[in-house]
Amino acid sequence: MNGEFDFIDRIRRQVKTSSPDLILGIGDDTAILRELSGRESLLTVDLLVEDVDFKLDYAVPHMLGHKALAVSLSDIAAMGGTPRFSLLTLGIPPRLTDSPAPPFWEDFFAGYFALAERFGVTLIGGDMSATPERLTIDSIVMGHCRAGQAVRRSGSRPGDAIYVTGELGASAAGLKLLLAGQRVKEDGDNLAQTALRAHLRPEPRVEFGRLLGEAGIARAMIDISDGLAQDLAHLCEESRVRAVIDRQRIPVSNCLSLFALGEDERFSLAIGGGEDFELLFTASEKDDAKLRQIAERCALPLTRIGEVLELAEGPSMMLKDRGHVSPLDVRGYEHFVK
Amino acid sequence: MNGEFDFIDRIRRQVKTSSPDLILGIGDDTAILRELSGRESLLTVDLLVEDVDFKLDYAVPHMLGHKALAVSLSDIAAMGGTPRFSLLTLGIPPRLTDSPAPPFWEDFFAGYFALAERFGVTLIGGDMSATPERLTIDSIVMGHCRAGQAVRRSGSRPGDAIYVTGELGASAAGLKLLLAGQRVKEDGDNLAQTALRAHLRPEPRVEFGRLLGEAGIARAMIDISDGLAQDLAHLCEESRVRAVIDRQRIPVSNCLSLFALGEDERFSLAIGGGEDFELLFTASEKDDAKLRQIAERCALPLTRIGEVLELAEGPSMMLKDRGHVSPLDVRGYEHFVK
Repeated sequence: MNGEFDFIDRIRRQVKTSSPDLILGIGDDTAILRELSGRESLLTVDLLVEDVDFKLDYAVPHMLGHKALAVSLSDIAAMGGTPRFSLLTLGIPPRLTDSPAPPFWEDFFAGYFALAERFGVTLIGGDMSATPERLTIDSIVMGHCRAGQAVRRSGSRPGDAIYVTGELGASAAGLKLLLAGQRVKEDGDNLAQTALRAHLRPEPRVEFGRLLGEAGIARAMIDISDGLAQDLAHLCEESRVRAVIDRQRIPVSNCLSLFALGEDERFSLAIGGGEDFELLFTASEKDDAKLRQIAERCALPLTRIGEVLELAEGPSMMLKDRGHVSPLDVRGYEHFVK
Repeated sequence: MNGEFDFIDRIRRQVKTSSPDLILGIGDDTAILRELSGRESLLTVDLLVEDVDFKLDYAVPHMLGHKALAVSLSDIAAMGGTPRFSLLTLGIPPRLTDSPAPPFWEDFFAGYFALAERFGVTLIGGDMSATPERLTIDSIVMGHCRAGQAVRRSGSRPGDAIYVTGELGASAAGLKLLLAGQRVKEDGDNLAQTALRAHLRPEPRVEFGRLLGEAGIARAMIDISDGLAQDLAHLCEESRVRAVIDRQRIPVSNCLSLFALGEDERFSLAIGGGEDFELLFTASEKDDAKLRQIAERCALPLTRIGEVLELAEGPSMMLKDRGHVSPLDVRGYEHFVK
C-alpha cells in the first residue's frame, strides 16, 4: 500500500507509550511485555469482515473503531480479567486509502483510542495490507488476571443460579433498523437511536467482568455474542451440565417494541439476536447479594434468569414458561448476518 | 459460515493441549497463559491477503499454512526470543468452504501444524468468518525471552559489524518464476524449485535467533521481510545510526542466475526483493568468533556485509563498491507485490 509507513507513523503518534508492564510497543519486530509470577495472561482475537459483520453504508467510522476494540474487550471481561494491551490488523480496500484521504481513518481511530483510554488499554502492535475489496479488521486484546482467578466456561455446577447483565435484543433491533434503512443521528436519543447504538457501538462490560473476577464468585462466564441461547449452550457444553431458563425473567429490551412483532418473535430476537455483549454467568445462590452489590456499583441491571441442572438424558437446554417446561430449540435462533 | 463450529472442532482436535505455561487453550472466551517473573512476553501479528501477499492459483495449501506461521515466527526470532503460542484468524471465501469440502484446509493445517510442532508452538486461539472474496489470514505469535534479553532494532552502535544469515534474493526469484507460470513440483530439486520453495515456504531462523538472543551479543536485529535495503534502513532509523554495506559481500542467491539479468539487476533483487526472512543484525567485531559458532551450530551461512557509522549529514545508507562509496537508494527497491 502506498504511504503505509506514513499511515503507521500517524497512528503511532496517537498511541500512549507508557503503561505498567509495557517494555516496548509499536515499532519493532514484536512488542515486549513484562511478566509477573502469580499472574496470568489472557489472549483473544476477533475478526470483523465488511459485508459479513458490518456494512460500510451504515457504519459510523468512530463507532466501528469503538466496536472493533469492544468485541475483544468483552472476551477479557467474560474471563473476569483486566484488559491491558491491544493489537490491530487492517486489510484496507482502495476506496479507503485513495487520496484525498477520507476522514474515515481519523474517525475510526478516534473511536478506537477513546475506548482504549477509558479502560487503560495500550495499542502495542498490528499490521496492515492493501486488500482488493472488503475492509477486514482483526482485533487482538491481551489482559491479565491473578493466577487461578480466570472465570472459564466450564465451572458451572448443578444448582447454580444463571445471571445475565443488561437487556437483550437491543442490538438485534438496531440491526433490523439499519437493514431497513434507518441511520444514526449524532444527537438522536429516542428508542430507535438507542437500538442503533446498541448494535453499532456496543458497550463491553469490562468493569463488571473485572470486579466479578476479583470477587471470585462466578463459577462460569461467557459474553453474549451469538445470542443468549447459543452462548448458554456453549457454557453448558463446556461445564457438562444442563440449564433451564425462565421465559418471564428474560430481560427483553424495550427496543424490540419498535417493531410490529408478537411476543414470541420479540422473545426469539432477545435470546437469539446476538451481539448484545452482555455477560452471562452462573454462581451459587448464596452469593446473590454480593453480585447485586457489584452490579449496583457498575450501574448495570442484573437479572437471575434460570438454574443449572445435572447432566441427564434429553435436551440440555430448557425453557420454563409459566410453570410449563419445554426443550429450548437453540438451533432455531441463528446469528443474524452470518 | 455454515459448519463453523464443526470446522473449529476439527482444528481443535489436531491441537496439542499441553505445553509449559499453557493453562487453557482453544475453547473459551480467551486463552490463559502462566506468567513468570524475570521473563518477558513477545507479541506479533502478520496479515496475509489473497492476491496481495499470495495468489491461490500458485499457492500450495500446505506451504501456505507453513508460511502463515513462518512469517510471525520470524518476528520472534528477530527479537532473539523463543516462540511458544499462536492464534490464527481466517476470513474464508465461499469457494474454500463449499461442499464437497476441498482438501485445501486439511493441507493448510498440515503445513501449519508441522511447523508449529517443529518449534514447540501451540495454537491457543483464533477466529474465523465467511468473507465474500479473498482469503485473509492473520497470524499471531507469542514468544518469550529472559527479561532484558530481547534484541531490539534500536541498539546498534557506530563501529558495529553488520551481519546477515543465509542468502538473499531466492524468494524474489521464486516469485518471478511463479508470476511467469512456473509451479512447484513435489519432488523437484533443481534451482528453480529451490527458488519457488524459498518464496512459498520460507524457513524462519527460529533456532539461530533464539541462540543469538541467549548469547546476548546482538546489539540490534530485524528480519528481512521488506528487503535488506529497507529493513537495514528501519534498523538504522531506530538506532539513530548510518550504515555502509559492501556490495561484493552481499550473499546473492544463486537462484537469481536463473534469469537473463545483469549483475546490477541481480543485486537489486537481492537487496530489495523482500520476503527472504533471513536475520539482519549488528554486533561488536570482537564477538565475531562466537557468532560463527552459533551459525555453524544452526548449519546456517553467516555473512558480515558492512559496518555501522555515526549519524551525520548526508544519506544514512551507503554502498561500498570496490572501494568507491555512494548513497544507497533504498526507495529504489520496492516490495514486489504490494
